[in-house]
Amino acid sequence: MSGEAALAGLDLTAVDAAAARIAPYVRRTPLDRSAWLSRRHGAEVALKLECWQPTGSFKLRGAMAALTALDGPARARGVLAVSAGNHGQALAWGAAALGVPATIVVPASASQTKVQAMREYPVELIVRGADYDEAERLARAMACERGLSFISPYNDPAVIAGQATIARELLQDDPTLDAIVVPCGGGGVLAGIALAAKLLAPRVRVWGAEPAASPTMRAALDAGRLVAIDEAPTLADGLAGNVEAGAITYPLIARHVDDLVTVSEADIRTAMREAAAHDHLIVEGSAAVAIAALAHLPVAGLRVAVVVTGRNVTLETFLAAIAPAHPA
Amino acid sequence: MSGEAALAGLDLTAVDAAAARIAPYVRRTPLDRSAWLSRRHGAEVALKLECWQPTGSFKLRGAMAALTALDGPARARGVLAVSAGNHGQALAWGAAALGVPATIVVPASASQTKVQAMREYPVELIVRGADYDEAERLARAMACERGLSFISPYNDPAVIAGQATIARELLQDDPTLDAIVVPCGGGGVLAGIALAAKLLAPRVRVWGAEPAASPTMRAALDAGRLVAIDEAPTLADGLAGNVEAGAITYPLIARHVDDLVTVSEADIRTAMREAAAHDHLIVEGSAAVAIAALAHLPVAGLRVAVVVTGRNVTLETFLAAIAPAHPA
Repeated sequence: MSGEAALAGLDLTAVDAAAARIAPYVRRTPLDRSAWLSRRHGAEVALKLECWQPTGSFKLRGAMAALTALDGPARARGVLAVSAGNHGQALAWGAAALGVPATIVVPASASQTKVQAMREYPVELIVRGADYDEAERLARAMACERGLSFISPYNDPAVIAGQATIARELLQDDPTLDAIVVPCGGGGVLAGIALAAKLLAPRVRVWGAEPAASPTMRAALDAGRLVAIDEAPTLADGLAGNVEAGAITYPLIARHVDDLVTVSEADIRTAMREAAAHDHLIVEGSAAVAIAALAHLPVAGLRVAVVVTGRNVTLETFLAAIAPAHPA
Repeated sequence: MSGEAALAGLDLTAVDAAAARIAPYVRRTPLDRSAWLSRRHGAEVALKLECWQPTGSFKLRGAMAALTALDGPARARGVLAVSAGNHGQALAWGAAALGVPATIVVPASASQTKVQAMREYPVELIVRGADYDEAERLARAMACERGLSFISPYNDPAVIAGQATIARELLQDDPTLDAIVVPCGGGGVLAGIALAAKLLAPRVRVWGAEPAASPTMRAALDAGRLVAIDEAPTLADGLAGNVEAGAITYPLIARHVDDLVTVSEADIRTAMREAAAHDHLIVEGSAAVAIAALAHLPVAGLRVAVVVTGRNVTLETFLAAIAPAHPA
């Protein structure tokens, strides 16, 4: 397997090193007990509030871990990423903090709101490619031509080590934790947390959560390999889409994740509404997936941490999602 | 003036001592730059996110400072407060953390939502008195009879020293800060921040913000003493109401605050909507008052911190507040 070589270096030492490198930039987010979720599920449920990172999502961990892993000449040449979303914002923020030149490629299909948000950062913004896949192909070629380091949102051991620092903090803050629930898209944060949690405390269960509309990893686990899936639109837009062939996240998830459940769009909307009502939090659809997943997991009686991955949702989408009346 | 004796001990040593006592319980909240507010006001505007305290508001600082100032016998007897709001929640949380018995008196006029929120805490909850003033009279008598320590939400030097720790953190995090904008109700947090900021860095301007519907301190500053005001309903319910005669917050504010502006209900609604749209934050009306006040203050070119005091607003109130169409 092509990923094995890359995986070889991905151990607790790598996670500890990533934690040390990103500490000056990344927030140690709180793990706050949620009274309503605890009552609802007969468990001790706490929220790991990654939505409170400076760029509004956990992606800052992986982006900073990748940026700080570059040597001096690579930093001087600069980095390139494809994303109008949380990874792009995180990389842009991190590059600015480190004084690394950053180029962000955005597919033409990206929303104007997201493109506008990227303009807050001092990056070269390039609109290229009809969709994400085409943008990534063109962007990788561009990175190669220009000598820039391409930073994948998930298929990169440094990025995964960065996301894995969440597990480290969780087990430091609550050594008696029984389980962790994590959203899954490309699988970087799920793979990283599962790897680190199992190394730190093998008894801890790690569960993934995907939107039923885009069940990439569920399909991969069922097939025993990454397979192309049909996707429907989802509020969890950060988790949507297929995963790159040969992605190193898949073998990590297959090896270390205990189970992976899918949740409906209605479940995601309800979780967004209830997080706002009870915990006064705006959470994006991708984060709500993990909250919604609690109902599908055997959490009763356990101490469970839910990774609330981000808060970057437009007000229009948020309000439409939490509006009470929806067609089924 | 009866407050002078109490004020005598309220200095930087008291604030430092409060900071040390509350540190194990209270979060050091981030000071995050707000891109849209900076652009809007031609200033460097950052938000002090006290809405991210464990109980959702800055009140935890004052409550913990007061609780930790009690001696052993007083802690063993217990504490009493009147509040179905942020002070009550903060005191209940803090009392539970310290193992101090707490009694919370709630006026019959308090909303069921707030009373319900108090039931999450292990406190004795007593509904007494038609409104806040009557509840407080009865509660003070009850505290006296039962030998409980009465903890005022603002008229207490320990509480004010606790709130003042915000200024200390602000000036540690940004020693070049030019100004601080703070909501004002009873005036505990405004008085504390103004006192500490002027002692730490006399050049820093401290501005207060009140709802025009309940301009208690503005009226007091204009009259040269606390005066009874007529109040209209306000979204900033945490700032509403008259201030206790002889409150020590008034002389502190008169001495140390540079100016105090009032904002309309429409301004509060707009600030709540924009904080949700641009920073993905649910902020309560009382916190939005300080954001709205920026438009009424000479902030251009300055580095300004806005104290975002809390996020405890019901979803219904939040959604009604940010709905686009409102009668004037």
